[in-house]
Amino acid sequence: MPPTPTRPPHYAELCGLLKEAATLGSIGSLLGWDQETYMPPAAAGHRAQQQALVAGLVHERQSSPRVGELLQACEADPALRQDPAAAANLREMRRDYDRATKVPTDLVAELARTGSLAQEAWKDARARNDFPAFAPWLTKMMTLSRRKADCLAPGSPEPYDALLDEYEPGMTAKEIAAVFAPLRDRLAQLIGRVRASGRTPDQSVLKIRTDPQQQHRFGELVLKAMGFDLSAGRLDVTTHPFCSGMAPGDTRLTTRYTGEGFLEPLYGTMHEGGHGLYEQGLPKADHFGEPLGEAISLGIHESQSRMWENFVGRGRAFWEWALPEARRLLGPALEPVTVDAVYAAANTVRPSFIRVESDESTYNLHIMLRFEIERALISGDLRADDLPGVWNERFESYLGLKVPDDRRGCLQDVHWSFGLVGYFPTYTLGNLYAAQLWEMINRQLPGLESDIRRGELIPLRDWLRANIHAHGKRYRAAELCQRVTGRPLSSDPLLRHLESRLAPVYGL
Amino acid sequence: MPPTPTRPPHYAELCGLLKEAATLGSIGSLLGWDQETYMPPAAAGHRAQQQALVAGLVHERQSSPRVGELLQACEADPALRQDPAAAANLREMRRDYDRATKVPTDLVAELARTGSLAQEAWKDARARNDFPAFAPWLTKMMTLSRRKADCLAPGSPEPYDALLDEYEPGMTAKEIAAVFAPLRDRLAQLIGRVRASGRTPDQSVLKIRTDPQQQHRFGELVLKAMGFDLSAGRLDVTTHPFCSGMAPGDTRLTTRYTGEGFLEPLYGTMHEGGHGLYEQGLPKADHFGEPLGEAISLGIHESQSRMWENFVGRGRAFWEWALPEARRLLGPALEPVTVDAVYAAANTVRPSFIRVESDESTYNLHIMLRFEIERALISGDLRADDLPGVWNERFESYLGLKVPDDRRGCLQDVHWSFGLVGYFPTYTLGNLYAAQLWEMINRQLPGLESDIRRGELIPLRDWLRANIHAHGKRYRAAELCQRVTGRPLSSDPLLRHLESRLAPVYGL
Repeated sequence: MPPTPTRPPHYAELCGLLKEAATLGSIGSLLGWDQETYMPPAAAGHRAQQQALVAGLVHERQSSPRVGELLQACEADPALRQDPAAAANLREMRRDYDRATKVPTDLVAELARTGSLAQEAWKDARARNDFPAFAPWLTKMMTLSRRKADCLAPGSPEPYDALLDEYEPGMTAKEIAAVFAPLRDRLAQLIGRVRASGRTPDQSVLKIRTDPQQQHRFGELVLKAMGFDLSAGRLDVTTHPFCSGMAPGDTRLTTRYTGEGFLEPLYGTMHEGGHGLYEQGLPKADHFGEPLGEAISLGIHESQSRMWENFVGRGRAFWEWALPEARRLLGPALEPVTVDAVYAAANTVRPSFIRVESDESTYNLHIMLRFEIERALISGDLRADDLPGVWNERFESYLGLKVPDDRRGCLQDVHWSFGLVGYFPTYTLGNLYAAQLWEMINRQLPGLESDIRRGELIPLRDWLRANIHAHGKRYRAAELCQRVTGRPLSSDPLLRHLESRLAPVYGL
Repeated sequence: MPPTPTRPPHYAELCGLLKEAATLGSIGSLLGWDQETYMPPAAAGHRAQQQALVAGLVHERQSSPRVGELLQACEADPALRQDPAAAANLREMRRDYDRATKVPTDLVAELARTGSLAQEAWKDARARNDFPAFAPWLTKMMTLSRRKADCLAPGSPEPYDALLDEYEPGMTAKEIAAVFAPLRDRLAQLIGRVRASGRTPDQSVLKIRTDPQQQHRFGELVLKAMGFDLSAGRLDVTTHPFCSGMAPGDTRLTTRYTGEGFLEPLYGTMHEGGHGLYEQGLPKADHFGEPLGEAISLGIHESQSRMWENFVGRGRAFWEWALPEARRLLGPALEPVTVDAVYAAANTVRPSFIRVESDESTYNLHIMLRFEIERALISGDLRADDLPGVWNERFESYLGLKVPDDRRGCLQDVHWSFGLVGYFPTYTLGNLYAAQLWEMINRQLPGLESDIRRGELIPLRDWLRANIHAHGKRYRAAELCQRVTGRPLSSDPLLRHLESRLAPVYGL
């Protein structure tokens, strides 16, 4: 669909209003990026006021009655309904408008206020390993989240779906559970076989110290090879890596060079680089502020980051190209390192109590545990007070480890304390989508492996751009998956991928 | 005046509305800062849209009818009129509101549109040294500026004053001319005596190459010594140095490390640091968005930057402390350098065709020339076509140099091409205020010279904070000058300062 000139006036006005909201949103993103990168600490108080003001202006526009009127007029226009691009835009604009208007403002405010207090309570409780102190706050936040779900989808038999829909539009808990169940069981088996192998790969490569500035150059070199356009983006350093595709021509990544080793920082950079490529590949020049210029879902977004981090970055082919480059930039400490050593270190299974420290395989078990629990908290099948018992029991059954305390158990993540429910499963959905796409890509690009071995990563980026990025929100995730891979989402490709990765390391 | 609680409701609402406008303005400042520092080039197009949107939202609020109503109500409130702080706020809010509403929006738009085209024409004309190609654009911009002046002050005998008022509230061309005339004549004499001395100080210290990163550390060390709070500000690198006092707790400086030498970058840093101390000293915590939290004028702002750059930074006492620090940070290249050598290089008179390359003394002659010419262009006494002849003739009489071409003459500055009229004189007003303040400070702080010799710069900052910064816009510049120095603005202190600085270098 070409931009404005040929658009009927009600559709053009609608797109214009939403573009203004998105422009304000892009300013909010810059405020957020600056806060994490360069803002002086004393500016924090005023920054909160700036953010609140911008968020209010965005919401005012997104939920304005005029948007509602125009949306109705467009939905009644047969020409627009028959144009697939416009129809996709309108489908998603309707979803956004309903989500922005169906929850009463006092409930939104109460969620924000209580979430902010609950987050403080969570911090204290975690520090003191005192779950009972946090339990009433968790109950409050789950009650409010359930009320929000009831506003969004009154009378739904699965209120959790309305919360999930915020991050993974159109996906349901039932569909997720159907894919997660076999994944969980076979992954638990796989990890059992790893444990039974008795092997512990040499991890010393993870501890090699190198200069952070040179690591930064190495990261930029890899980003360039991936086809990330550094004249339309940046790489900076923050406490927690992130990607902000804040505006047309402006996609900013961050990474960190803490602790020992050069591998984890590189994976941070490649992960955010994958997100960044998605943002740079979206057709924002023509469709900024419209769903056609936006990412499909967090799951699809995560599939892009995981593909570059895990499927490319932890592969042997990648290191055949990257290790000489790393040696050149990071210096003599890398001289004795071999591709085999990096491969083994990058594909080691390390069952851990802490999600963010876990490896590519066990990570998914952490996620599935959280999905099951948050679904039960929202349905009412699980009470907040009973959380630690359920958590510890399932954790042991999935990962074979006894949780020593709640700090290393159900108190470890911040998400629920401020009402982020339905977010966790998108991480593993990302892995699943990535694996299924990866099999199809390798079928369609039979030379990919040898391209990667020479550092030729652009064919992969171009495939992703043409098949995923360029569509914006034209298709929902499930439809895109079916169109691109010819099959609905399945756990088989991810299991095949993990098995083939771990086989040489553990002699499986 | 304490903040909100005790304020009558109409006054509190007025301050609240203007605070919201200022918060939006602070967001515009961040957009501007980011554009000059870290924004990827491809983001420029969208950045212009963000800026235009924010500028529109700011103007909407500043010129809203509600602000006009509240202002009237406050002006009629005897309690507010009797409170000196509130009365000062209302005086300046009235001025701002009138300036925001008296010029019709179509004239504002025409000025912006024509200014943008005229700026392009100026760039071309300067590159090709073709004044006649620029003359019609200059005529247009002066005609539009005159129309703007007539809107702001209908029937004024000196329309230039209304333009000057934007940058130097309350100051008139007549007052400026009265101070400038003796300065111009005595400065021309002083430069004649310098020339007659036949001396050319050794400039080799200006060419010593040192590491930019170490220069940055040295700059930060000097800023810290000046009392600039780096937890409420930053120092970055841009093509053109600037200071953005963008928000409470957020004052950002930039400098540059181009070309040879460490002195010019340091003076850039100290200059912006002087602006930055003013911004950090304004009572923004209590009065953000109100005139009481804002700088008085560009002239007073410039007095702060020039004081640190010139009165402190080019003085012998400063270098007795700073040179050992510079040696420590900038390395062996500085070993042979003496305080005398730095002093002579920092106080050399270098008559130049180009304003931005000129020295502390001749700089003022460049400014006075521009003031006389822009005043005559606005009054109609000078036609754009006649500009080069008048420029070249006066330039020779003030600086003793024959202008070789318009590129190095009347085409050198961008200001007039986009309607910046009344801005130039504030540079020299800054030098004049700085000199007059400096004499008073040294009378009130008799130990200042020896403090500076030990790098103790905080007493100076504290004096400026208490006597200048803390007042915000409570007093106009002329009133502040009278209150603080006991006299109206005069050219004598600046002339005394320059003579005493140049005497040892040129044996005057």
